[in-house]
Amino acid sequence: MPLRILVWNEFVHEKTDDAVRARYPDGIHACIARALAEHPLLAGAEIRTATLDDPDGGVSDAVLSDTDVLVWWGHMAHHLVPDDAAERVADHVRRGMGLVALHSAHFAKPFRLLMGTSCTLKWRDGDRERIWTVQPGHPIAAGVPEHFELAEEEMYGEPFDIPAPDELVFLSWFAGGEVMRSGCVLWRGRGKVFYFRPGHETNPTYHDPNVRRILGNAAAYVAPTSWSGPFEAPKAEALEPKR
Amino acid sequence: MPLRILVWNEFVHEKTDDAVRARYPDGIHACIARALAEHPLLAGAEIRTATLDDPDGGVSDAVLSDTDVLVWWGHMAHHLVPDDAAERVADHVRRGMGLVALHSAHFAKPFRLLMGTSCTLKWRDGDRERIWTVQPGHPIAAGVPEHFELAEEEMYGEPFDIPAPDELVFLSWFAGGEVMRSGCVLWRGRGKVFYFRPGHETNPTYHDPNVRRILGNAAAYVAPTSWSGPFEAPKAEALEPKR
Amino acid sequence: MPLRILVWNEFVHEKTDDAVRARYPDGIHACIARALAEHPLLAGAEIRTATLDDPDGGVSDAVLSDTDVLVWWGHMAHHLVPDDAAERVADHVRRGMGLVALHSAHFAKPFRLLMGTSCTLKWRDGDRERIWTVQPGHPIAAGVPEHFELAEEEMYGEPFDIPAPDELVFLSWFAGGEVMRSGCVLWRGRGKVFYFRPGHETNPTYHDPNVRRILGNAAAYVAPTSWSGPFEAPKAEALEPKR
Amino acid sequence: MPLRILVWNEFVHEKTDDAVRARYPDGIHACIARALAEHPLLAGAEIRTATLDDPDGGVSDAVLSDTDVLVWWGHMAHHLVPDDAAERVADHVRRGMGLVALHSAHFAKPFRLLMGTSCTLKWRDGDRERIWTVQPGHPIAAGVPEHFELAEEEMYGEPFDIPAPDELVFLSWFAGGEVMRSGCVLWRGRGKVFYFRPGHETNPTYHDPNVRRILGNAAAYVAPTSWSGPFEAPKAEALEPKR
Repeated sequence: MPLRILVWNEFVHEKTDDAVRARYPDGIHACIARALAEHPLLAGAEIRTATLDDPDGGVSDAVLSDTDVLVWWGHMAHHLVPDDAAERVADHVRRGMGLVALHSAHFAKPFRLLMGTSCTLKWRDGDRERIWTVQPGHPIAAGVPEHFELAEEEMYGEPFDIPAPDELVFLSWFAGGEVMRSGCVLWRGRGKVFYFRPGHETNPTYHDPNVRRILGNAAAYVAPTSWSGPFEAPKAEALEPKR
Repeated sequence: MPLRILVWNEFVHEKTDDAVRARYPDGIHACIARALAEHPLLAGAEIRTATLDDPDGGVSDAVLSDTDVLVWWGHMAHHLVPDDAAERVADHVRRGMGLVALHSAHFAKPFRLLMGTSCTLKWRDGDRERIWTVQPGHPIAAGVPEHFELAEEEMYGEPFDIPAPDELVFLSWFAGGEVMRSGCVLWRGRGKVFYFRPGHETNPTYHDPNVRRILGNAAAYVAPTSWSGPFEAPKAEALEPKR
Repeated sequence: MPLRILVWNEFVHEKTDDAVRARYPDGIHACIARALAEHPLLAGAEIRTATLDDPDGGVSDAVLSDTDVLVWWGHMAHHLVPDDAAERVADHVRRGMGLVALHSAHFAKPFRLLMGTSCTLKWRDGDRERIWTVQPGHPIAAGVPEHFELAEEEMYGEPFDIPAPDELVFLSWFAGGEVMRSGCVLWRGRGKVFYFRPGHETNPTYHDPNVRRILGNAAAYVAPTSWSGPFEAPKAEALEPKR
Repeated sequence: MPLRILVWNEFVHEKTDDAVRARYPDGIHACIARALAEHPLLAGAEIRTATLDDPDGGVSDAVLSDTDVLVWWGHMAHHLVPDDAAERVADHVRRGMGLVALHSAHFAKPFRLLMGTSCTLKWRDGDRERIWTVQPGHPIAAGVPEHFELAEEEMYGEPFDIPAPDELVFLSWFAGGEVMRSGCVLWRGRGKVFYFRPGHETNPTYHDPNVRRILGNAAAYVAPTSWSGPFEAPKAEALEPKR
């Protein structure tokens, strides 16, 4: 069965801000979907998109049940995502769906539900970022250079209040003087979450070839595997005789 | 300033079940509070107790602001803990308060908020447990033997759906055939959480000297430290000149 | 390029002990190689074997340079593996080669070099083991049941002196009363190591279908990925102008 | 019993280089020992120093048996530390002694033995460093500001080839464009290791009040705890009757 990927975008900036629309005429989701479609590891994958205006916020139970990996971009409309939609997303991750949370999605409701922490960080618009690989053997770093630059990006800086990542793949350096754990894998339930820092709406980040490679690597990495046990924990009969 | 510890118990079983009251005539909280008072690492600590019937569920903002370490025992009344009380507890942990979550507290609202996962596990009443130390150099294992037994305990078994612990201190073996990660440290925000598995209300677990030692070690371990930075993440001025 | 797997076995027990030869007439390595060849994830892989009697202990630099994943079984001849052979293996792991270390390989020279700890554990021949999955979403657990039994196995028990695993996939329960972290992933340099506990030479463990599935899953999981940066750390020119 | 701390320095630069002697007239070890003596958490500790010229390289078995926490500074004389001295240090760490490894000690023999990896990193003399706290609730960060600067330091940069730290406390930003995981806790056996990046011999780093605070916090943090189990793993009798 082909891998089923859903790229979700709140899709608000692009409709209201000319500068953003110039960067992403069809929406950030369309640009990301094309990046995934071009990635060699994802050949044959079914790649769809959804936005906040779609029924059930774009993430109905039926849609999520057809999704192996969800990519999420949100920023100014976090509060408009219905609480039950956020719970559905978190629940599907716990049951095995992969999640790639991008940039401002550190404050998205599903991401916060899965982290359990405040997810706060420092920020400042208009900086320059250099991304360093710290776990060179990690599949998400495959084909990525030791470091690469994004000439225009919003700064996000430490302390970043998430639980210690299970796998720390990338660190960012900012010209303004900050650092950030910018590529983090966090296993939650049976699902894997990859948080990737860059992607401010007014910057051309998702057109960058290294970013696009990372997006594809990440979608492949968080794809679910098929475990054969039950999800619900039952009251259990003893496996050994009483003694 | 002395360490301020609050032992919270839903305090329902002891009022309604003779067998439980026989084990814990003043309530599980009173038994635990005495264990902590006798622990050498906690000499001088201020140890208080609270129960669900207290104002604001026993965990008002004022009470939590006076608390360095919260010990939590709950089981049949998880659903009666107000949502805002659970949020307050989780928020105080993120800001640095330590939390020792005991036994059925794996399903307590504050614990689930902090974990972000389903926290499900296998269970069966009436088993025998042997607890093994797997990280012998850990402060919570100080003075604890390589292994010790609890002749009567409820079984909790894997898969236990929490994020991978930051520190795994104890594993449990059950006569019925299961295993469990039964002593787990999970850092959340600026606070530390220790989950400790044993403590079924009808068993004499909190009278056991090894368990009492672990409770005291854990309360000392999760005590907060004083970092001097801000909690809220501000929009930040650049630290370096533009170039 | 197909995945290149090398199954290494000291191959001593099978030549000197009838009971072992009865279990593994062509050697443990041959049995494991067939398990890998039958695994769906490894279709097309090149699977070779080597033993201690081969030139350079079976792990010359040329052989290792042609190897993506090394599976290692050793027990009574650990001390006969030349120190430089052990260093070569460890060095290739650091540069990206995957390693699946089986059973008594907890005391193999290359494994100890990579761990940095004593790697001691408890042991007793003649027990019964039940293996539990604790990270159900892990690729190495794909298709593996919640728990399965090995009717005859040597017991290895905690405390197992390795660094805390980066990923803990399986725990073992023993009828004799012990527990063990029995499926552990440890990233070392650019390589990944999977330690898997079962496989005593007098028991039919590597004929067990669940064990065979895990072996194949593990070989696929620790396969290297291609990072494009250098391994040696150079003295580096500044990336930013002095100021 | 008071905490027994040993500050070890190869003590070569200070004898041969006027610039280093100007910074540390009595040796780097003496400066660090004074920092520890002034730290409130270490009141009452016995603080000694040792250097490479002392018998058995300063780390005889007798000396190490009297040491709870070892602080290690080495650089140009790593190769002059006898192999057996390095093994002794590593073995004492595994048995519970704490180790604070400073700056170039990333390449010290005992540190490499404990890590199992190449421990390579990028480097360049003459840079400016800003250290950020990423785990604000960590005891080693107590009283440390969100960030602080060292106006003159050698740059060490990623990729830093150590196993993923068990606890990541500090990250460094360099004016020249690099980043580094610069405060890392790694548990090894029963001992804890803290690697702290700064401390180039020609810079006044160990006179900096934030650095001195961190050194003291770290020495307190890695102090051993007393577990009551055996270190050697015995062949074990079954704890349960055969069935």
